[in-house]
Amino acid sequence: MTTPLQGPIDRTGLEVLAIDECLQLIDRSPVGRVAFLHEGLPTILPVNHRLDGWRIVFRTTFGSKLTVATMERPLAFEVDGFDPETRTGWSVLVRGTAEAVWSQEDEQELDQLGLEPWADGVDRDRWVAIHPDEITGRRIIDRPWEAEA
Amino acid sequence: MTTPLQGPIDRTGLEVLAIDECLQLIDRSPVGRVAFLHEGLPTILPVNHRLDGWRIVFRTTFGSKLTVATMERPLAFEVDGFDPETRTGWSVLVRGTAEAVWSQEDEQELDQLGLEPWADGVDRDRWVAIHPDEITGRRIIDRPWEAEA
Repeated sequence: MTTPLQGPIDRTGLEVLAIDECLQLIDRSPVGRVAFLHEGLPTILPVNHRLDGWRIVFRTTFGSKLTVATMERPLAFEVDGFDPETRTGWSVLVRGTAEAVWSQEDEQELDQLGLEPWADGVDRDRWVAIHPDEITGRRIIDRPWEAEA
Repeated sequence: MTTPLQGPIDRTGLEVLAIDECLQLIDRSPVGRVAFLHEGLPTILPVNHRLDGWRIVFRTTFGSKLTVATMERPLAFEVDGFDPETRTGWSVLVRGTAEAVWSQEDEQELDQLGLEPWADGVDRDRWVAIHPDEITGRRIIDRPWEAEA
């Protein structure tokens, strides 16, 4: 049994996901991860997010994530899903720029998304929006050489 | 019902995990994520890894991850686990330096770990080891202010 091919295969044997599938996967994932430089070193933190059109938005408090965001520095966002049983999985990577949402109108619209941060020990009342420059997705498929045969 | 406190609480209301718990969580997670700069931009890629003493090791092929690794550049490694039902979860972040394993002896020992890459469309026969400089873990706890009361 081989998985039917859905898309092209990259040079490392992974299926390349179409952008609409990438967006669906971002939308369906309750938790993603952001990576950015903190004190010059790569750092990864989980966020719970929403897809808002082409933007990925999350809430935060004043701290490293917001600091990065307000400086309009590049960052990466990732969602993934894996099944240890079948040893298959997928991941979507977004590279772009983050910015804090300052407009009150924009903020009020985002407040309607119903995104309540899971970690609620402090107020996470600031919105950060990631503007993608690049969205790529890959899926581990079952023995591509057999599927190709 | 509140979750019993396991450790200290950070300034954002998250429980700080002890380092031995962080190592256990790394060890038990089949998939982690590495973040590094690729062409100057933050990038996140999933890896399946093993904990080997204090090192985190994974297999790769020649490509961006290995390129980073051989340049002995800083990178981050992350594992996490979340439960959308209870809106709780944890994450462990490792910041350190990656290096390719070149010693044949070391390579042979790592081959005994039984780590077969899930994505097997191409040979991933090079080992990369992450040497942690910093290991930190956080857990979302249920209403810390009640538990503290």
